[in-house]
Amino acid sequence: MSERLSGKTVAQHNSRESCWIIVHGKVYDVTEFLDEHPGGSKIILKYAGKDATQEYDPIHPPDAITTNLPLEKHLGPVDLETVEKVVVEITDEEKARQERVSNRPPLDEILNLHDFESIAKQVLTDKAWAYYSSAADDEITNRENHAAYHRIWFRPRILRDVTKVDWSTKILGHKSSMPVYVSATALGKLGHPDGEMNLTRAAAKHGVIQMIPTLASCSFDEIVDAAQPGQVQFFQLYVNKDRAVTKKLVQHAESRGVKGLFITVDAPQLGRREKDMRMKFEAEDPSVVAKSGSEGVDRSQGAARAISSFIDTALKWDDLPWFKSITKMPLILKGVQCWEDALEAYDVGVAGVVLSNHGGRQLDFARSGIEILVEVVAKLKEKRGLSFPNEKFQLFVDGGVRRATDVLKAIALGATAVGVGRPFLYSFCAYGQEGVEKAFQILHDEFEMNLRLLGARTLKDVVPEMVDASNVSSHIVAVPGDSLYNNNYESMVYAKLKEVKSKL
Amino acid sequence: MSERLSGKTVAQHNSRESCWIIVHGKVYDVTEFLDEHPGGSKIILKYAGKDATQEYDPIHPPDAITTNLPLEKHLGPVDLETVEKVVVEITDEEKARQERVSNRPPLDEILNLHDFESIAKQVLTDKAWAYYSSAADDEITNRENHAAYHRIWFRPRILRDVTKVDWSTKILGHKSSMPVYVSATALGKLGHPDGEMNLTRAAAKHGVIQMIPTLASCSFDEIVDAAQPGQVQFFQLYVNKDRAVTKKLVQHAESRGVKGLFITVDAPQLGRREKDMRMKFEAEDPSVVAKSGSEGVDRSQGAARAISSFIDTALKWDDLPWFKSITKMPLILKGVQCWEDALEAYDVGVAGVVLSNHGGRQLDFARSGIEILVEVVAKLKEKRGLSFPNEKFQLFVDGGVRRATDVLKAIALGATAVGVGRPFLYSFCAYGQEGVEKAFQILHDEFEMNLRLLGARTLKDVVPEMVDASNVSSHIVAVPGDSLYNNNYESMVYAKLKEVKSKL
Amino acid sequence: MSERLSGKTVAQHNSRESCWIIVHGKVYDVTEFLDEHPGGSKIILKYAGKDATQEYDPIHPPDAITTNLPLEKHLGPVDLETVEKVVVEITDEEKARQERVSNRPPLDEILNLHDFESIAKQVLTDKAWAYYSSAADDEITNRENHAAYHRIWFRPRILRDVTKVDWSTKILGHKSSMPVYVSATALGKLGHPDGEMNLTRAAAKHGVIQMIPTLASCSFDEIVDAAQPGQVQFFQLYVNKDRAVTKKLVQHAESRGVKGLFITVDAPQLGRREKDMRMKFEAEDPSVVAKSGSEGVDRSQGAARAISSFIDTALKWDDLPWFKSITKMPLILKGVQCWEDALEAYDVGVAGVVLSNHGGRQLDFARSGIEILVEVVAKLKEKRGLSFPNEKFQLFVDGGVRRATDVLKAIALGATAVGVGRPFLYSFCAYGQEGVEKAFQILHDEFEMNLRLLGARTLKDVVPEMVDASNVSSHIVAVPGDSLYNNNYESMVYAKLKEVKSKL
Amino acid sequence: MSERLSGKTVAQHNSRESCWIIVHGKVYDVTEFLDEHPGGSKIILKYAGKDATQEYDPIHPPDAITTNLPLEKHLGPVDLETVEKVVVEITDEEKARQERVSNRPPLDEILNLHDFESIAKQVLTDKAWAYYSSAADDEITNRENHAAYHRIWFRPRILRDVTKVDWSTKILGHKSSMPVYVSATALGKLGHPDGEMNLTRAAAKHGVIQMIPTLASCSFDEIVDAAQPGQVQFFQLYVNKDRAVTKKLVQHAESRGVKGLFITVDAPQLGRREKDMRMKFEAEDPSVVAKSGSEGVDRSQGAARAISSFIDTALKWDDLPWFKSITKMPLILKGVQCWEDALEAYDVGVAGVVLSNHGGRQLDFARSGIEILVEVVAKLKEKRGLSFPNEKFQLFVDGGVRRATDVLKAIALGATAVGVGRPFLYSFCAYGQEGVEKAFQILHDEFEMNLRLLGARTLKDVVPEMVDASNVSSHIVAVPGDSLYNNNYESMVYAKLKEVKSKL
Repeated sequence: MSERLSGKTVAQHNSRESCWIIVHGKVYDVTEFLDEHPGGSKIILKYAGKDATQEYDPIHPPDAITTNLPLEKHLGPVDLETVEKVVVEITDEEKARQERVSNRPPLDEILNLHDFESIAKQVLTDKAWAYYSSAADDEITNRENHAAYHRIWFRPRILRDVTKVDWSTKILGHKSSMPVYVSATALGKLGHPDGEMNLTRAAAKHGVIQMIPTLASCSFDEIVDAAQPGQVQFFQLYVNKDRAVTKKLVQHAESRGVKGLFITVDAPQLGRREKDMRMKFEAEDPSVVAKSGSEGVDRSQGAARAISSFIDTALKWDDLPWFKSITKMPLILKGVQCWEDALEAYDVGVAGVVLSNHGGRQLDFARSGIEILVEVVAKLKEKRGLSFPNEKFQLFVDGGVRRATDVLKAIALGATAVGVGRPFLYSFCAYGQEGVEKAFQILHDEFEMNLRLLGARTLKDVVPEMVDASNVSSHIVAVPGDSLYNNNYESMVYAKLKEVKSKL
Repeated sequence: MSERLSGKTVAQHNSRESCWIIVHGKVYDVTEFLDEHPGGSKIILKYAGKDATQEYDPIHPPDAITTNLPLEKHLGPVDLETVEKVVVEITDEEKARQERVSNRPPLDEILNLHDFESIAKQVLTDKAWAYYSSAADDEITNRENHAAYHRIWFRPRILRDVTKVDWSTKILGHKSSMPVYVSATALGKLGHPDGEMNLTRAAAKHGVIQMIPTLASCSFDEIVDAAQPGQVQFFQLYVNKDRAVTKKLVQHAESRGVKGLFITVDAPQLGRREKDMRMKFEAEDPSVVAKSGSEGVDRSQGAARAISSFIDTALKWDDLPWFKSITKMPLILKGVQCWEDALEAYDVGVAGVVLSNHGGRQLDFARSGIEILVEVVAKLKEKRGLSFPNEKFQLFVDGGVRRATDVLKAIALGATAVGVGRPFLYSFCAYGQEGVEKAFQILHDEFEMNLRLLGARTLKDVVPEMVDASNVSSHIVAVPGDSLYNNNYESMVYAKLKEVKSKL
Repeated sequence: MSERLSGKTVAQHNSRESCWIIVHGKVYDVTEFLDEHPGGSKIILKYAGKDATQEYDPIHPPDAITTNLPLEKHLGPVDLETVEKVVVEITDEEKARQERVSNRPPLDEILNLHDFESIAKQVLTDKAWAYYSSAADDEITNRENHAAYHRIWFRPRILRDVTKVDWSTKILGHKSSMPVYVSATALGKLGHPDGEMNLTRAAAKHGVIQMIPTLASCSFDEIVDAAQPGQVQFFQLYVNKDRAVTKKLVQHAESRGVKGLFITVDAPQLGRREKDMRMKFEAEDPSVVAKSGSEGVDRSQGAARAISSFIDTALKWDDLPWFKSITKMPLILKGVQCWEDALEAYDVGVAGVVLSNHGGRQLDFARSGIEILVEVVAKLKEKRGLSFPNEKFQLFVDGGVRRATDVLKAIALGATAVGVGRPFLYSFCAYGQEGVEKAFQILHDEFEMNLRLLGARTLKDVVPEMVDASNVSSHIVAVPGDSLYNNNYESMVYAKLKEVKSKL
Repeated sequence: MSERLSGKTVAQHNSRESCWIIVHGKVYDVTEFLDEHPGGSKIILKYAGKDATQEYDPIHPPDAITTNLPLEKHLGPVDLETVEKVVVEITDEEKARQERVSNRPPLDEILNLHDFESIAKQVLTDKAWAYYSSAADDEITNRENHAAYHRIWFRPRILRDVTKVDWSTKILGHKSSMPVYVSATALGKLGHPDGEMNLTRAAAKHGVIQMIPTLASCSFDEIVDAAQPGQVQFFQLYVNKDRAVTKKLVQHAESRGVKGLFITVDAPQLGRREKDMRMKFEAEDPSVVAKSGSEGVDRSQGAARAISSFIDTALKWDDLPWFKSITKMPLILKGVQCWEDALEAYDVGVAGVVLSNHGGRQLDFARSGIEILVEVVAKLKEKRGLSFPNEKFQLFVDGGVRRATDVLKAIALGATAVGVGRPFLYSFCAYGQEGVEKAFQILHDEFEMNLRLLGARTLKDVVPEMVDASNVSSHIVAVPGDSLYNNNYESMVYAKLKEVKSKL
C-alpha cells in the first residue's frame, strides 16, 4: 500500500493557485478543474486543503470525481488521523430545518401522496428541494402533467360483485402488485442518506418494480445489492457518447439480473431548470458574487451542460439494432411524445415505450404522457391494428400521478403501467424507507376502493368506456382578466352573526 | 327485572385491561372491542367505568352498540343514582362556538341555502363539520356537482300569462309541493339533538317527501313516528351481507308505510374522506399520538371500513328479483352513473334511478348527476324510444343543488325531481326544524319567481329547449399559469380620490 | 284652500297605534300601511309625527304615496311653519362619505366608464350602491353580460382612408350621435338630487337618445320638461294590471312627444336581489331585529313583490294588438331572450326587440344579450330571410357594456344600437350632469379611435367578418382546483436585487 | 455666427404670458405652444426662462422642437455661461430608485427575458415604465399576445442526431443568427441614456437584425452610425401626411443602407394607453389639477393625438405603388390582422407582412399575431397555393414572445422570423448594451436546447406537425364565480408538523 499523504501537506494546498481536496480518504488536485465545476468554484474552494466528503457525497454519483478528473490528479490516500475535522457550522436556518425534521407528524397521519411532498418541502434543504422540484422554463409542462388527469372523468359501473378486487398486473412479463413502478429520479442522497436504497427495500416488501437511474447517488451495485432475491429491477439508461462505456454498463446490469432497459430518448441535453439554477446563486457568498459583477463566470449553463456532457446527442433510430446486439433485456424507449415515434418504435421491434416528458424537466410545452397515450392508442390501432394494453408492445406513461385514480385513468386508456417518480422520492426524503412503504400502502388502499367504486374486479375490467377523455387535449388559457371591471364588482356576502356588544 | 349493577362496580373497570361503559343506563364490557372501534380506543377509554351516553348519542345509530357487541358483553342495567355524573369540561373553543350559536342572525336574514351552510360551518363542532362537509380524495367531484349546473344556461320565454304558476309535481305517484325531495344524509344528531326528525317535521309542513337514511342517528321508527298521517317517506337502503337483516329492514319499512325503496348502488365500500380522517387525529391527545409514532395503530382506513363493513360488496343485478319478491315498494337504484346502467335498470324493470355520485363522497372524478342526465335521456330515447320526464321510469339527480334554478335545469333536461341533502342538513344544524322550513320557503319563493321569469306556468312547460346544456361535458383545467409573466404585469388602476393634506 | 293642520297635531300621531307622516307639506295617516311597507315599518316609525320628505324623496317615485294610500288617508296640508325641523344626525360613516365626495378627482382624470363606477361606489350611500349594483341570485348573469363581450375578438382591416370616421346612426328613424342609447334605470335620486334629469340634459348636449324609466325618481313630466326642443326620448313601460292606467301613461307619453315605447317583457315579477335585501337588514336597528327573531315579519320578499305588485303577470302576445290600437309610437319588446321569441315579435309586427336580461337583475343564468344576438341574427335569416342591421325590425342589446369596442362588436353582429344603463347612472352619481357628458365624450373618443383601428369609416363598414364570435356560447367552469397539488407547487421567482447591508 | 442671447434675458420670460426655454443651447419662444403641448403646459412652465434640455432629451425625438415650432419662434443660441444651472431636486422616491439601480443583481443571475422586465420595472422611473408597459384600453390584447402561445403545445421527435443544431436563418435575404429581429419601440432614452443605440451595438455582436423606429429617441443617423459595417438594419415607418417628408425619410434610409421598409399599417391614430395617461396626472402638482377642476384642459386625448398628428389616416392600398416608385427596399406591411389583408398584400406584391397588433397598444381585442398566422397560412395555401415559410412572401409575427419556445411555435406554423420589442427594450433599461447581449445569449441557449429537445437540426425541421395549435382560437372567459358557494368550501389541508410546546 502506497505511502499516505499527511493532512498537514494537504492543508497547504488551500488556494485557487493550488487546490487539493480529500474525498473518501483520497486526495485530489482540483486546481485546474475549479472553473469547470458545474456547481461553481466557490463551493470547492471552501474545502481547499480539507476533507470535502460530507459535502461531496449527497450531490455526486460515487464515481464522479474519479471519472471526471485525469488520473494524474489522483494524488493517493491521506492519513485521516492527521486531517483536521471540518466543523460544519450550523446556521439558524439549518437548526430550524432540523427542528422541523423532528416535528414531522407520525406516519399514520399521512393520508395521501401530497402529504409526503408537503413534509419533504419542509424538511429538505433548500438545495435539495430546488433540485428535485424544479422543471424546465416556466414549469408549465411540469404542472400540466398533473392537470391533464383532471380533464379525464370516470364512468363507473354498478351492481357487480366487487368483494374481491385485484389490481396486480404484469409488467414486461414480471409480476407487480400494482400497475405502478418506481420511476428513475436522480441524486437520492440529497434527500436521505440511504438515497435510492430506500426505494429498493420498500419495493421488495410491496412487490413493486424499481427502475434504477443512471444518475443515482448510490452506485448501481449498491442498489442491486439492496434488493431481495427475485426482486425485479429495471435500469434507466442515458446513452454515453462512448459506446464502450454504455456497453459495459448495460451488460453489467444484465449480469446483475436487471429485467428491462429503459433508454432515455427525451434528453440529448439536460434541461435548464431555473429554480435549481437560482439556488446556485443563493448558495454563493453574496459579496463575492457582487464583486464579480457581469464579468463573473457564467455558470448558469454550466451545470446542465456538464452533467449531461457525456450524453450522446447523436443517438438515433439506427442505433437500436446495436442495443439488441449487446443485451437480451427487453428495450423500452423512455420519452416518446407523439404517435409517429411510437409507431416507429413498434416497427423497429422494441418491447414498449414510456410516453413521458421527463417530469416536465426537459421541453416546456411538451404534452403530458396521458394526452399522448390517447393519440398513440388511436393511431396504432388505425395503422397497425393493435389493441391496448398489449403484451407485445407495452405502453407506459409517467408524470403528474398522485392518486390511484390517475393510474386507473391511464389503465383504462390502454397503458400497461404507470411510472411514479417524485412522490416516492419525497416519501423517503420525508420518512426514509418507511415513507415509501406507506406510500405504497396508500396506493393499495386507493386501488382497492376505486376498483370497487368503478365496478371493476381486475384491471382487465378497467376499459376505455370507463373514462371520458374527450377534453384531454383542451389547452385553454383564459382571456386575460378585466381588472377594472372585476375590481368594481363587490362579492356577495352571507348573513352575518350578530355583533356581540362588548360588556362594560 | 334483573339486579342493577352499581356505579361503583362499573367504575372499577376503568382501564384497557377491563373496560366497561354505560350507555342509556346499561353496562357493556367493551374491553375486547377497544381495538376494533372505528373511532379509536382513546375516546372509549376516556369513558372507561363511566357513563358514555352523552358522547355516544350523536355519533352512533341507536342500536350500534347492541348489534356490534356480542350478547355476553351486555352486562345489564346500572343503578343510575349511583353513577357519578360525567362533568364535561368546556374548552375555550367550545365556549366560542356556543357564543356563535347564540349570535346566529334571525331566520329572516337568511336569504338562500348558502347562508345555512355558512351558519352551520360556524356553529357546528369541528367534528360534525368535518364529517358532513368532507368528500372523496381531492373533493373534485364534490365541487363539480355544483359547478356543472353553472355550465347550463337558460333560454327563457316571454309574454305568457304567468299569474298563476305551479311547481308541484308527483314523485313515484305521490304529490310533492316541489320537484325536490330530502335526500338521505347520515348521523344527523352530530349537528342537532333532534337529528333527522327535524327534516320529518318540516317536510310535513311543506308537503315535501323525505328519504330516510339507513345510517340515521335517529332510529327508523323514531323518524317514522315523527311523521304526520299521510306524510310520504322513502327509505334509503345499504344492502347488508346478511340478507335476512335486509329483508327485515325492508319489510319493516313497508309495513310502516314507506312508499319507495332507494337501493344505494354506488357504495360497496364507503369512501375515504380525508378531512374527516384528519379530524380524528386532531381529536386525539397529540402527546399520545406523537409517542406512538409510526407504530401507532393505523385507524385511517378503519373508520370507513368498519362503518361499511356490513355493506354487501357482492350486490349485483341478479339480486334485483329478490328485492321485488320481498316488497311491493317501488325500487329505485341510487347511484347510477352512466347510460349503460340506466338502460339496464330500465330493462330489469325498476321504477327509476337516481343519477348521483353520493355527494362526491365516493369516487373522485365521478361525473355530476346533471351531466349524466343528459346522456341518459339521449341514449334511452335512442335505444328504447323513451321520453322524459317519464312516469314509468323516473330519473332523479342529486348533488350540488343550491338554487331553484339548479332544479329547473334538471327538470328541463328530463328529471322528475331532484334530491337535496347537505343544504337541508345544514338548515337544521343551524336552526333546527325552523331552519328546514325556511329552506323550503326559500325554494318555494325561488320557484315562483323563476317559473315566471322562464315563462313557464307549470313544470310541464319547463322543456329541453329552455336550457342550453351544450357545455355540460366540458371538463377544462386551464394551462398552468406563467408566474413570471403574470407577476411582471401591473394591473390597471382607477382614477384616485385626491389625497387629503393633513392639517397642521 | 282647506284648513292646514298644525305640526303639533301631527306630532301627536307618533306611534304604531296612530302614525301620521308629512311628505311635501301634506299629511298622511299610514297607520294601517305600516306592515305593508316594502321597506319595513321601522323606517316609517322613525318619522312618525314628523316630516319624512327628505327620506322619502330619493327612494320613491313622486306619486308613490298618493297612489298607494287610499284617499281617506290623505289628511291634507300642514302648516309647515309649525312643524319641527327633523335634524338628521350625521354618522361618522356619512362624514367619511361626504369627505370622499369632496375628494373626487377632477373630471379630466376620468379615463373610462369603469372610473365612474369606482367613484360612484365610493361616494354613494351604502343603500344606493346596494340597490344599483345588486342583481339576481348569485349575480352570475350580471357579470356574464360583460364577460360575454370578452369572448368576441376583432378582425380589423388596414389601409383604408379613415381620416373621417362617422359613428352616428339612426335609431327607430331618429338621429343618434352614436349607436348607443341611455337605457332605463330606476330610482335615480338615490344617487343624485337631480336624478334622471342629469341624463336628459347631458343627452341633449350630445345628441343621444334617453329611454325614460317607469320607475324613475323624477316624474315623467319632469324628465320630459328637462329635454330640449326636438330632443328624442323613448319610454320604458312596465305594463299595469289595470290597463286604463297603462293606456293613460302611454298616451300621455305619446302626447309629450316620446318616440318609442319599450315594453318590458322580462319582468312579470321583479327579481330577488340579495345585496339589496341584505342592506335592508343592515339599515334596521339590530336590537329590534334580534328580538323579533324568527317571528319577525319576513320583509325579504316584500320589497320585490310590493314594488312589482302593479306589474301585469298575465301580459301576453295577444295583448300586443291592443297596444297598437292605443298608440302610434313604434313598439319594441325589451327583454327578448331567444330566437323563437324574436321571430314571434317579428311576425306580430313590432318595430324591434331589445335582447336583454334586465342587467342580470331578473333570472340568473339567463344568457347575455350579445350571445342571444348571434342566434337571433342567424335564425331570422334562416327562417325569414332577414339581414341585420335592419330598419324594419331593429335589434338592440343591453347589459355589460363598458367600452366602445363592446358596442362595435354588437354592431358588427347585427345590432342597430346598444343600451347602456348603469355606467351612465354611475356617471351622474359621481359627477352629476357633467359626469354623463364626460361619459359620452369618452365613448365618442373611443368610437373615433376604434373605427379607425378597425378600418371602418362608418358603422356600415362594421360587418360580421370583423369579429370572431365563435366562442360566444362557451360557458365554461373550470374543474375545481386541486388544493393539495397546487399548494405544494412553489412559484418561480425572478433574479433578486442584492440585499443592502445596513450600515453601522 | 449670430449674437448669443444672455441667460439673464431668457430668465425674464418665465411666465405663461411669455415663456422661453433653452434646449441644447438654443432659445425657443413656446408661449403660444403651451396649450398644445402633448405633455401639458405645466411641465414646460417649470422650465420657463431656464434650460430644459435635461428634461427634454429622454422624451422627445431630437428634432421634435425644431419641426413643431414655427421658425420665427426659434430665437437663436444662448450664452450657456450665463445660464443658471437647473438644480434638479432629488426626491426620496428617486433616491430609492437609484439605490435599486446600484443593487441590480449581476448579469449572470439573469436567467430569462422575464428577469429583465422585472429589473426594469424596479429601476425605471415611473414615467418610463408607464410609457413602455402600457397598452390599449383594458390591456387584454397586450396579455393575450403572450397567452396565445400557451395554447400551442409541442409534439417533439426523438432519436435524431442533434449534436449540431443550427437556428440561424435568412430574413428578407439577409443572414440572421436566429429567427428573431429587434422590433421597433419608441422613446428608448426614457430608459437609458444611450437609447436605441444599445440595441444597435448588441445586435452587431450577435448577428441580429434591428428595426429602427420612426419615433426613436436617438436620431435615425445616430442609430445607423452606431452600426458596424455590413450590419443589417430595417426601418419602421409611420407614413406622414406630407408625402414629401416621407419620401425624404425613406430615401435617406435607403441611402444609409437600410435593407427593408416596414410600413406600419395598424396605427392611423395612436392608441389610448391609460396607464400612461394616468401617469401624466400623477406628474402634475395635485393642487393645481384640483383647482382646475372639470374646466381644466383635457389633455387625456391630447398626448396620443399630438404625437400621432403627423400620421396619415388616409393611407390606403392605392398608395403602395408610390412607395415602390420611391425605393427599391423591400416593402413589408406591419400590422396585418386577418387573412383577407394578407392575401391583398400578397396580390399587390409586397415582400411580406408582420402579423401584429402593435404590442397590444392599439385596438384592444385585436387577436394575437400567432393566432392570425394560423389562418393566414391556411387561407393563402387555399387561395394561392402558397406554402410557408416562403421566401417570396415572408410572414412575421410579433407580440408576447418571451421564450425561444414561443419563437419555435411561430416557425413551426410558417413564420420566417419573429419580432421582439419590449423584452430587448427592458434589457437595456436594466443593463444597457450588455443587457441586450445577455438577452440574445439567453435566446441562443434556449434555441440550442429546444431544437435538440424537439429533434430538429435546423429550422427547416421545425414543421407544422411539431405543434398542436388546435386551441389557438379558444377565447374563453370562465363563467363568473359563485362566491357564496366557493367561500363556504373549505380547502383541504396537509398533515401538519407537530406543534412544539414552548418550554417554561
